[in-house]
Amino acid sequence: MEFVSATYRLRCAEQDAETIAREIALEQTVEVPEELIRSAAISDDVVGRVRSVLPVSGTSGAFAAVIDYPADLAGTHVGQMWNLLYGNISLKRHVRLTSVSLPAEVRRRLPGPRYGVDGLRDMLGVYDRPLLATALKPRGSSPEQLAALAGAFAAGGGDVVKDDHNLVDATFAEFRERVDRAFDAVEEVNVRTGRRTLYAPNLSPPIQELDRYAEYLVQRGVRAALIAPMLLGFDTVAQLTRRYPLVWLGHPTFTGSFFHDPDHGVAPGLMLGTWFRWLGCDATIFPNYGGRFSFSREECVSIADGARSPDTDFKPCWPAPAGGMSFDRLSEMATDYGADTQFLIGGALLSDSANLEGSTRRFLEAILAQFPQANQREPAAAWASACELPMTTEARKILEHLSFRSDFTWRGRAATAYKPDDRLPFRDVSRTELVGAFGESTAFDVRYFEIAPGGYSSRERHVHAHVVMGVRGKGMLDTGDVSQTISPWDLAYVPSLRPHQLRNTGREPFGFLCIVDHNRDRPQPA
Amino acid sequence: MEFVSATYRLRCAEQDAETIAREIALEQTVEVPEELIRSAAISDDVVGRVRSVLPVSGTSGAFAAVIDYPADLAGTHVGQMWNLLYGNISLKRHVRLTSVSLPAEVRRRLPGPRYGVDGLRDMLGVYDRPLLATALKPRGSSPEQLAALAGAFAAGGGDVVKDDHNLVDATFAEFRERVDRAFDAVEEVNVRTGRRTLYAPNLSPPIQELDRYAEYLVQRGVRAALIAPMLLGFDTVAQLTRRYPLVWLGHPTFTGSFFHDPDHGVAPGLMLGTWFRWLGCDATIFPNYGGRFSFSREECVSIADGARSPDTDFKPCWPAPAGGMSFDRLSEMATDYGADTQFLIGGALLSDSANLEGSTRRFLEAILAQFPQANQREPAAAWASACELPMTTEARKILEHLSFRSDFTWRGRAATAYKPDDRLPFRDVSRTELVGAFGESTAFDVRYFEIAPGGYSSRERHVHAHVVMGVRGKGMLDTGDVSQTISPWDLAYVPSLRPHQLRNTGREPFGFLCIVDHNRDRPQPA
Repeated sequence: MEFVSATYRLRCAEQDAETIAREIALEQTVEVPEELIRSAAISDDVVGRVRSVLPVSGTSGAFAAVIDYPADLAGTHVGQMWNLLYGNISLKRHVRLTSVSLPAEVRRRLPGPRYGVDGLRDMLGVYDRPLLATALKPRGSSPEQLAALAGAFAAGGGDVVKDDHNLVDATFAEFRERVDRAFDAVEEVNVRTGRRTLYAPNLSPPIQELDRYAEYLVQRGVRAALIAPMLLGFDTVAQLTRRYPLVWLGHPTFTGSFFHDPDHGVAPGLMLGTWFRWLGCDATIFPNYGGRFSFSREECVSIADGARSPDTDFKPCWPAPAGGMSFDRLSEMATDYGADTQFLIGGALLSDSANLEGSTRRFLEAILAQFPQANQREPAAAWASACELPMTTEARKILEHLSFRSDFTWRGRAATAYKPDDRLPFRDVSRTELVGAFGESTAFDVRYFEIAPGGYSSRERHVHAHVVMGVRGKGMLDTGDVSQTISPWDLAYVPSLRPHQLRNTGREPFGFLCIVDHNRDRPQPA
Repeated sequence: MEFVSATYRLRCAEQDAETIAREIALEQTVEVPEELIRSAAISDDVVGRVRSVLPVSGTSGAFAAVIDYPADLAGTHVGQMWNLLYGNISLKRHVRLTSVSLPAEVRRRLPGPRYGVDGLRDMLGVYDRPLLATALKPRGSSPEQLAALAGAFAAGGGDVVKDDHNLVDATFAEFRERVDRAFDAVEEVNVRTGRRTLYAPNLSPPIQELDRYAEYLVQRGVRAALIAPMLLGFDTVAQLTRRYPLVWLGHPTFTGSFFHDPDHGVAPGLMLGTWFRWLGCDATIFPNYGGRFSFSREECVSIADGARSPDTDFKPCWPAPAGGMSFDRLSEMATDYGADTQFLIGGALLSDSANLEGSTRRFLEAILAQFPQANQREPAAAWASACELPMTTEARKILEHLSFRSDFTWRGRAATAYKPDDRLPFRDVSRTELVGAFGESTAFDVRYFEIAPGGYSSRERHVHAHVVMGVRGKGMLDTGDVSQTISPWDLAYVPSLRPHQLRNTGREPFGFLCIVDHNRDRPQPA
């Protein structure tokens, strides 16, 4: 059996530490007291196992408890892992999750960074120094004003320009306009200078519009995006980063309550470093110490460690300390974070925004002074937009051409069994899957059914709606209150939950296409 | 201008309170220091306005700051609201969000409970007393064992039986089996006794499977479900509760870090009471005081208040205190929470699970002793499964029958302009929207295009894949490297991002169907 191993920091009296650890192991798995577990299989295979409870050296009244959870409990989707690690237990006092170790089978379900440190260096052609990043703001500026800032930053030699996470659009049209202008401004400079500045728009649409917005970015040639995992939901973010080949920048908004109390919540290095990296962020933004937020130097370094410590499965993710960064502090930052860092500098650049290009250049020179070995050379990777990348096998797929034959079959497709559900009687029906069962990426399937004279399909209903179109012969679509003749090219829309059945009412085979959502519920007897 | 008004509790020296309030107003809106805002429009329409900063009476060093944010900044989707209310500010110390007031335009975007207190009473036929609820557990039990518990609880007269939130399935088949058995066990008792016990399975699938799982519940006749808003993401939950007519029970897992420090995070009454209600939860589960979690009596009462205080826009949501509930405490609970409460009793019932039916009955009798005015009467609402309810206009929609006419038109549909994008030249093309543009719920659209002899469609590409099917005449599908003839009934699948163009190569009109995802990106020149 494989285990997810979690380390908790407990704040308690020494004589209670073991008991508390055991309570956590029960609460997070079975949620009943020990005496109510009456099966050895549950005790052995479900309940968490307390591996060790040791005093934290140098801190009296603090203990590190290591609990192993059966890997099955982490679920097959990534959001569920937090239910296991820190679900109910978040509602108790004085328990902080400080580190997590995952077995191979759970690690495989996590996307991890697609580009990471080396991948982005190869895209930009910038080696052996931190990247200089900035944020477009303030909200309320026009798209032209934001685009001008983006262009000036690129012209000054900046590496990464992201939207402020407060740039949220009321409509898709607004999003498009804002993104288009900033992207064009940066690309115009890229073409002129031969350098490469990456632009990352804020992706924060209503959840049901997420794919539409992300597809737009890919389509438009944009190569990066900013996301806020705590607002979008972890599972949604893992889906996004896995699906779209953008450089993903993770933003920490709304995560702060996990970090406020050192005896509660989740260690910042685990959440913003390790976890954001596992979720597929290529960079993780966090408030730098000494600025207007509350992280300590030690916490910031732990985030950087979580983001880019060596790992065989996950590429390193860029730590991107932000806030309170100034010329004076560059030497300190260089020492603390090293070369594989994005210095995200907002206010200190904008405060000189009358000449943002000049101040960007000065900042870059200050970075180069700290990293004399830095070099800008021919990038190892193409400056391809995401839509030019081999994003999926889909993009390389040969166009499929299913030519129709006079016997009402299609080249490359064969008829299959109608359906195996014996609750749904039917007679003399054959089915041919045309589109959707062969790895296509459409949201729908197209199938051809043929019913012999005297035959009928099952009477059924389901939540998904679908469309029927006649191909040959003549049939009847019965839907309880209404019946409709279906002849070739006739279309019928069958609404959600409407009982329906098709019958051949002629003397030759009755053939029809069924166009139906790819993700759909099973038909039920009606 | 309308405003979202937020009240924060600050812990600071009196002379700093105004300054901190002003910093919050800037941080949450423009994220730049005041001196960098150079436009009056931004100062007036974007920056938060500090309305008042007053000492909290009875607590030295605590201040209540009221900040008004322009309603536009709350975004058009509900998750974004937390970016505005407590995004970056969560990363600062000693600031807690304690209450929020929304203008009408923002309230309209929130689903709110569909059934609420009265709706569920009318479904169950139980009036003037708290409901008795329990949880199926522990994880690791077989579906048969869980179903037996559910049946026994129903037989004992229990009102609501939910899955434990740790009951998470590795596959859809497991989910189905578990739900089917428990639901059937409860329904069997319902039929036998004429009473109504509600079963709420845990809905916690991978995010891309959410609709499939939810549709299964609706389809199967299940009337309720348990969800964990902090794991799923707020926007996702609002979509779910709006779309599926289930009774939704909200679970607090993973929310605890917001509540741990009284000087930080979000007040529990706001998050678990008001916010879960706004999101569409009909009941909100929270750990009762005096049990194994850390809420105080006052905090629990504040959750109940947030859940069901009078509101013209939102029905009341059931508070469902859980944990540490025993016979001894029923009188206290009755006094604190009143009749419109679900008493969620797990351990105290299960500890007597050799006779769960009997202990359920005894618990119910103890509740009735506290609420002598309670009555069970003919339910005012049908015991309809969700799929029998008028869930959307969709379910009432008349079957649409588009009969084909010999001139290659369809009854009820007319040709429209081809497309307005002048970057994409075309010649002699007409378009008829057949399915998808008229409020259908399919994930795809069906359109008919006709190209006159010598004409062609635009050469374009897009992220979404689609399908072309010949209807009349003869044409050519060009895709860069490959060209294919399209005759009637020929099908072609055009993969994602493949450049393509259709041409009429014959002497009569070339007509074809295009089947395409309903949500899709715009075509671009290729």
